Amino acid sequence: MQLTRFTDFSLRVLMYLTVQPDDQRVTVTEISERFGIPRNHLVKIVHQLGQKGYLITRRGKGGGISLARAPESINIGAVVRDMEPNLKVVDCESPICPILPGCQLRGVLDDARDAFLAVLDQYTVRDVTQSPEHLRSLLRYSA
Amino acid sequence: MQLTRFTDFSLRVLMYLTVQPDDQRVTVTEISERFGIPRNHLVKIVHQLGQKGYLITRRGKGGGISLARAPESINIGAVVRDMEPNLKVVDCESPICPILPGCQLRGVLDDARDAFLAVLDQYTVRDVTQSPEHLRSLLRYSA
Repeated sequence: MQLTRFTDFSLRVLMYLTVQPDDQRVTVTEISERFGIPRNHLVKIVHQLGQKGYLITRRGKGGGISLARAPESINIGAVVRDMEPNLKVVDCESPICPILPGCQLRGVLDDARDAFLAVLDQYTVRDVTQSPEHLRSLLRYSA
Repeated sequence: MQLTRFTDFSLRVLMYLTVQPDDQRVTVTEISERFGIPRNHLVKIVHQLGQKGYLITRRGKGGGISLARAPESINIGAVVRDMEPNLKVVDCESPICPILPGCQLRGVLDDARDAFLAVLDQYTVRDVTQSPEHLRSLLRYSA
């Protein structure tokens, strides 16, 4: 019952940007090195975060990425909904499950998924980065 | 945010056994064919379900598998806990996430996971097989 790496790393990117000092320029390469995430993977994540309105990307020399919105307005549940490839707890369709038309488990799993997301909906990226100095110091040592 | 196939198919096996008439002999091969699940995969699932006390396996001619307990005493949340390889929503340890010692997201994800399981804890295998005849008819057509 895991989130995809894509979503996991998306949340790390948003947290990383949140704890940077205001004038700090951040690049994809830097985040890749700090977290040990392959750069190619991160490029796709940053692209989608941009498309979904979480990031601004400035190209060229002196370019970089930054949050498009205040971290207190970035809801964790919304990020998970935007970044997960789908929100189905099980895949009933490949191969097609023969009991699908009469399955009562599916509704139970959907309710469980909704309860999961309802908890995440209570938190923003700001809520999970309450000690920016501490997180910055941890990230410095990992470089 | 999916359950593994291993857990998904475990639940299908338990539901399949629940809707069988009392004297029906069920084999792994039969379940494999009905659901289109590779037999080798199913053998491992049935083995673990047996080890966890959900199934009884009778070997040899006339053998087969059956529920070890009444379906109204088999809790969906318990099955998920027993069959999922781990209950972590994200993998913070490979590669090791540098912000782990100060991460506040982890507690939020754990709370969400607990809310997910708390919903499943409200249901048994009997609760999700309330129309055994209907499920049996769906499974017959898939054979």
